[in-house]
Amino acid sequence: MRRINVGIIGAGRIGLLHANNIIKSNLLSLQAIADINIDHLMESEWQDKVTMITTNVNDIFNHPNIDAVFICSSTNTHVEYIERAAIAGKHIFCEKPISFNLKETKHALKIVKEKGVKFQSGFNRRYDVHFRKVFESVRENKVGEPHIVKISSRDPSPPTEEYVKHSGGLFMDMTIHDFDMARYLMNSEVIEVSAKAANLVDPMFSKYKDVDTAIITLTFENGALAVIDNSRQAVYGYDQRIEVFGSSGVVSADNELQSNLQISTNRGTILDNPKHFFLERYKEAYVEEINCFARSLLDNLPVSCTGVDGYKAELLAHAANISLQTKAAVKLSELELVEKNVEVL
Amino acid sequence: MRRINVGIIGAGRIGLLHANNIIKSNLLSLQAIADINIDHLMESEWQDKVTMITTNVNDIFNHPNIDAVFICSSTNTHVEYIERAAIAGKHIFCEKPISFNLKETKHALKIVKEKGVKFQSGFNRRYDVHFRKVFESVRENKVGEPHIVKISSRDPSPPTEEYVKHSGGLFMDMTIHDFDMARYLMNSEVIEVSAKAANLVDPMFSKYKDVDTAIITLTFENGALAVIDNSRQAVYGYDQRIEVFGSSGVVSADNELQSNLQISTNRGTILDNPKHFFLERYKEAYVEEINCFARSLLDNLPVSCTGVDGYKAELLAHAANISLQTKAAVKLSELELVEKNVEVL
Amino acid sequence: MRRINVGIIGAGRIGLLHANNIIKSNLLSLQAIADINIDHLMESEWQDKVTMITTNVNDIFNHPNIDAVFICSSTNTHVEYIERAAIAGKHIFCEKPISFNLKETKHALKIVKEKGVKFQSGFNRRYDVHFRKVFESVRENKVGEPHIVKISSRDPSPPTEEYVKHSGGLFMDMTIHDFDMARYLMNSEVIEVSAKAANLVDPMFSKYKDVDTAIITLTFENGALAVIDNSRQAVYGYDQRIEVFGSSGVVSADNELQSNLQISTNRGTILDNPKHFFLERYKEAYVEEINCFARSLLDNLPVSCTGVDGYKAELLAHAANISLQTKAAVKLSELELVEKNVEVL
Amino acid sequence: MRRINVGIIGAGRIGLLHANNIIKSNLLSLQAIADINIDHLMESEWQDKVTMITTNVNDIFNHPNIDAVFICSSTNTHVEYIERAAIAGKHIFCEKPISFNLKETKHALKIVKEKGVKFQSGFNRRYDVHFRKVFESVRENKVGEPHIVKISSRDPSPPTEEYVKHSGGLFMDMTIHDFDMARYLMNSEVIEVSAKAANLVDPMFSKYKDVDTAIITLTFENGALAVIDNSRQAVYGYDQRIEVFGSSGVVSADNELQSNLQISTNRGTILDNPKHFFLERYKEAYVEEINCFARSLLDNLPVSCTGVDGYKAELLAHAANISLQTKAAVKLSELELVEKNVEVL
Repeated sequence: MRRINVGIIGAGRIGLLHANNIIKSNLLSLQAIADINIDHLMESEWQDKVTMITTNVNDIFNHPNIDAVFICSSTNTHVEYIERAAIAGKHIFCEKPISFNLKETKHALKIVKEKGVKFQSGFNRRYDVHFRKVFESVRENKVGEPHIVKISSRDPSPPTEEYVKHSGGLFMDMTIHDFDMARYLMNSEVIEVSAKAANLVDPMFSKYKDVDTAIITLTFENGALAVIDNSRQAVYGYDQRIEVFGSSGVVSADNELQSNLQISTNRGTILDNPKHFFLERYKEAYVEEINCFARSLLDNLPVSCTGVDGYKAELLAHAANISLQTKAAVKLSELELVEKNVEVL
Repeated sequence: MRRINVGIIGAGRIGLLHANNIIKSNLLSLQAIADINIDHLMESEWQDKVTMITTNVNDIFNHPNIDAVFICSSTNTHVEYIERAAIAGKHIFCEKPISFNLKETKHALKIVKEKGVKFQSGFNRRYDVHFRKVFESVRENKVGEPHIVKISSRDPSPPTEEYVKHSGGLFMDMTIHDFDMARYLMNSEVIEVSAKAANLVDPMFSKYKDVDTAIITLTFENGALAVIDNSRQAVYGYDQRIEVFGSSGVVSADNELQSNLQISTNRGTILDNPKHFFLERYKEAYVEEINCFARSLLDNLPVSCTGVDGYKAELLAHAANISLQTKAAVKLSELELVEKNVEVL
Repeated sequence: MRRINVGIIGAGRIGLLHANNIIKSNLLSLQAIADINIDHLMESEWQDKVTMITTNVNDIFNHPNIDAVFICSSTNTHVEYIERAAIAGKHIFCEKPISFNLKETKHALKIVKEKGVKFQSGFNRRYDVHFRKVFESVRENKVGEPHIVKISSRDPSPPTEEYVKHSGGLFMDMTIHDFDMARYLMNSEVIEVSAKAANLVDPMFSKYKDVDTAIITLTFENGALAVIDNSRQAVYGYDQRIEVFGSSGVVSADNELQSNLQISTNRGTILDNPKHFFLERYKEAYVEEINCFARSLLDNLPVSCTGVDGYKAELLAHAANISLQTKAAVKLSELELVEKNVEVL
Repeated sequence: MRRINVGIIGAGRIGLLHANNIIKSNLLSLQAIADINIDHLMESEWQDKVTMITTNVNDIFNHPNIDAVFICSSTNTHVEYIERAAIAGKHIFCEKPISFNLKETKHALKIVKEKGVKFQSGFNRRYDVHFRKVFESVRENKVGEPHIVKISSRDPSPPTEEYVKHSGGLFMDMTIHDFDMARYLMNSEVIEVSAKAANLVDPMFSKYKDVDTAIITLTFENGALAVIDNSRQAVYGYDQRIEVFGSSGVVSADNELQSNLQISTNRGTILDNPKHFFLERYKEAYVEEINCFARSLLDNLPVSCTGVDGYKAELLAHAANISLQTKAAVKLSELELVEKNVEVL
């Protein structure tokens, strides 16, 4: 069976996660990894696992046998690599966000479109078995017309200061997943965003004009509402719950726990905590995500999470930031007007 | 609306529980309480609540307006009071067990039958909303033909030594409820009993040749099986769970907790304990039990838990004791043969 | 033991609910019921249950033995009856809301203060055992500093058109309970309100410029946030869930189900629905609410839910309405300024 | 890093499951597969995955680089292959049961001991994360002294008639896992077995004097009890639950569900079924099982599940069969006496 030959750009945590999953996949084949720093790969088992480890990204773009590029480098490099990959005729899987700048994101996606390569945005949660079943239940009309989408999304502990500095802020770094999930579940476009936030977890965030706690309300074209609550620190573990309330019922997915253990004593019954963080919680989702990408390429089907999906989530992050500053709801139609160079995709 | 006038014999914990429920019921009216010791009633609000408080049970049997007698005195007095009540033409509600002696139980029930009064056995768990729904689900064929009934029945803490001394032993005092529940849920008669037991909670039990931990297996006429596990001490609270496994599914009722509270911290998620003991757990069931009795009398309908039900549960307790001693399964047909004066009801 | 003698004004659903609970309470004694229409009481058992049934409220205000008045009549009559009761020296229990007009509410509470009578607002959910335990867990610092309070509050089915017409709108009629709960749990005052709403359940609501679906975000003095989601129609039953997320954990109370029944078949495991509506869900809470009121009077203690609590919840309802119209967050400080005749309590 | 070189005997469902897991393991390396029928391997991807595919088991026993043999062939061949592998100096992983004959099992284990090779019995459930945590909780004294071990173990659907014919019967084929789990959790030896069983699922079983529904009670040296209930058909999925009740609490592991999905409508709340069968439910356990075996070999540590563990579980299966026939409890001490050629290991 034919496999998709992959080159990965960026050998950090997420790049190597994809690398390992590609190696185990029957649909993909890892050909090369490029990074500016490859020391950690040279002294390890990676030497056995991948043919080419390089510091020159051109080795990937110019590689005749590479079908697709996984862009897992820093966000500020995404746009350049997307455009170069597209020009080189490589299909693209790109981690979120595409960029911190809507205009640049649009430009990159324009090149992708012109060159006719496929592009998948890296919203891994769409591939989680629990969330996928919630999505399918909504599509199969199990709960009627959706009225309210609720998402609780809380990290187990705050990232490092160094990370926060370059993260793009809570909405662009963390809520962006929830913005995508809300759109995905509602199957309608957001028309208005209203955000409230606070700095309650760690004063460090305020040094970078960032927040660590937030509630964001979305209004959709179909009239329905969504609400997201975020925190950078849920001490009990990675809290990832979704709920879709509709005209004939409600469907939800609660957290995946570390085990089904229950211990009852005279002090109550204790259950295990949720799985610790995204590497454990979304382990299977990451596998499914890249296999979906591979199948889109092998069967020439539309990708399951498009560049426009990536752009829309970024747009919502920008809108949330503006709402926070103006203390008012932000209409997306007005936001796109303000960003005047931003053409409709 | 007409009410059933009641006299209670025995003003202990269970007698006064029924008394309070009768007072609140729209179907029953409390006329008299009799006990050998009424001091605790004379100095309290009971004076306002009930017209007659007496040490002479004849005041109840001879009372022209009393329709029904609740027998809540010590087990060794039940048979005498049942017979006298029946002869006096009073309907009877009798706490479990009817007696410790199968022959005497049968004799009492024979008098009841001859005198044509109604008789309800006090198996309160039949009236629990959760267990009732399990029962109804089985009857409505929600799980197909029953194959296995499972009952976990564990007290929160052992009774006093004084109580144990006169309790009739684990099977007669505690498992008797589970024997009745197994018959009730299976809707078939037991043909064989096999019991294993141990003394693990408190050596005190062994002083009275009693056990505190047991597993009893029942075989039914319909070929199905039941298993009961008991303990005199579940430190996490009153553990009362039932499950009916059948050819097309399984139905169960887990414990009722003290509240729905959930607290998640870095040490896990903690839930509340089950309701502490029968007074809390079966609070509503005791109310429903006596109202069922009242409705049977008011509408002249069969009672919901008969004297034969009481006898059958006692028979199973005897069989379990014999099985424990002989280390073999006991066939009920052989047991009845052995007890030769015991005629089939 | 001395009891509080009570007169009830308003013999509708909630008035009779309190009447029945007062009759069963050891701390209260029902003396009189007044309503403009008493036909439904004259032909029923109520004749036996209460000494005086009258169409003249003065019979209650002038009654020498009545200690406290329960005001359960239409909202538009509350202020008048509060003032007359206070002038008559009667303590007051008043159903929510006190009035639809902040200025009138303040005036009534001013009279109450001047006359020195006690006044309890009828926010029954504070007395629910589950919510009470959540409250206590927060107070006992089980989850650290509260960061986010989340409340899901959805009715099983919309009220009648006649009810909606006089309801005061979603925020004043329904969310008012959630506003009180958020303040109660957070133990801090709200400084800003932001509301989004929609008309998705029934177009009837829009005839009265009302909404049926809403998400409201609150910002508190302590910097924390709360979010409430409402719907007038949750087909699966009365959905009443709360969660307090804090710096060291999260505490929540999920719905109380109709039973613990679980049935597993080849189509999954089915559980019972939540208790249907407030009469079932808050049955015990209503009992506890009036006993708390009675204890405050008997022991001369502060009431557990004050007139100011009632006023504050109304203030939040008004703010939510303004936020909905202006599509902006409403600062409570500005709202009180606008309502210039509204003095600080 | 050094890996254990493995040869697999038997390329059926379980043999190929191990083969796939060995291929993905960092600790093991698959060298050869032997089976009498290898057609299904020759026309598939297995050609790429394993160097040697052979119909001659000697190719494995004589292979100089093979360290360990996985015996996954029919039970009636196990003893021969164990002895030949031991003589060839290969370490052994053997699927359950070792044999249907206690004497033969003992003989094989004697050869293993003489030859000094390591031997692991294939009780995969010991490696399940949930059950492992239950085990550890008991060992860490979280529930005090164990009093009752409860195991529900039910297959989703009966095996084929062909399978049943050679299965060794319910106790040897299916309950054997539960016998091992009970011993593992209790950490004490069984002294007595009492079994009840029925043929309720399919009359086919009775053709082979087999049963499909059973309850087995075990008494342990430490005085505690265990109870196992089995069915060949749980239509809602693979039902695998364990509970250890002790002097200071109870620890349990409920089923792993296919997802956390919950859908609430006016007909109740529906949850997903348990994972379908052992391939899904114990997927991770099978991986952990062989890695444990590998680590025992690499670090020369005792195996985690011994040949004696395999023998003991078989002994319990024989005892259960005798108890079923004799309708009496079977003492293991007497059973070993009866089997006079069976020496104590």
